[in-house]
Amino acid sequence: MPIKSLIRTIAHYPREGIMFRDITTLLKDPTGLRTTIDQITERYRSEKINKVVGIESRGFIIAAPVAYALGAGFVPVRKPGKLPADTIGCDYQLEYGRDRIEIHVDAIEKNDRVLLIDDLIATGGTMEAAIKLIEEMNGTVIECCLVVDLPTIGGSKRLQQQGHKLFSLCRYDD
Amino acid sequence: MPIKSLIRTIAHYPREGIMFRDITTLLKDPTGLRTTIDQITERYRSEKINKVVGIESRGFIIAAPVAYALGAGFVPVRKPGKLPADTIGCDYQLEYGRDRIEIHVDAIEKNDRVLLIDDLIATGGTMEAAIKLIEEMNGTVIECCLVVDLPTIGGSKRLQQQGHKLFSLCRYDD
Repeated sequence: MPIKSLIRTIAHYPREGIMFRDITTLLKDPTGLRTTIDQITERYRSEKINKVVGIESRGFIIAAPVAYALGAGFVPVRKPGKLPADTIGCDYQLEYGRDRIEIHVDAIEKNDRVLLIDDLIATGGTMEAAIKLIEEMNGTVIECCLVVDLPTIGGSKRLQQQGHKLFSLCRYDD
Repeated sequence: MPIKSLIRTIAHYPREGIMFRDITTLLKDPTGLRTTIDQITERYRSEKINKVVGIESRGFIIAAPVAYALGAGFVPVRKPGKLPADTIGCDYQLEYGRDRIEIHVDAIEKNDRVLLIDDLIATGGTMEAAIKLIEEMNGTVIECCLVVDLPTIGGSKRLQQQGHKLFSLCRYDD
């Protein structure tokens, strides 16, 4: 079953000119959800991943079942002020202004083999910030994994040029 | 492995007097995550659940792997303005003021057998609103499932008095 056939495109959301790729139609379909998680899990089965990091909040929906299926732990990366214990954070650039993500200081340990997951990569700013946080805690990011890549926006290319490995289940070139 | 032993309590978060039950320490532990999801899945294995609804955003982390393990679809209930397609919403009372949750109008179909999941129940306002939304779409809520119940705050009792079924993996009576 092709993943892409279950993803819905919503034109002009959240604003004029944006083609929003909506994965809720993929997730609500039992075969869609199963295939998505299995395709990701299959790729990392022998990689000895022990932590799967998911980026708030759609990333949680993919990262948590992958962590479960791989027998790894799940770690959330969240927006500021959402995590209750001590955190470290990283600011990153948005199209307009700045944003910030945080992670618990005890979430990643030295030599953790980390799979970093989000639903989609566009500019790649959030993912780049998440990589920095994990590496600051001496974890190794084995690969960044996405359901959707929007390569025309350039985020995936930039991260790859920085030496990071990236894998996506599908891409939109328009 | 007792679930509760891996949950961390953070005193006075997010404000004075609140004992915050932090499940991130449970989730990052591979055995903790596995046991949590397996204990829930085991309970519903023969219930023919076809949709698992998770409440934003910690509910996503539990609901998505349970959906995957049960072979069901996953549906998010989100805060206002976060879902890209047509939604229906439900307002509910907070301690101070009001809040609102939304669900896609095409997320639940008539006769869907729904398992509703969140990480924790306190006042039960969000869960009650989510039940209303699912029932408005003619889905059947088989049970509400939580990792943590705070029975002294009264939410779980109120929902049960309304005739809803509720199951939690652990509870704090202080």
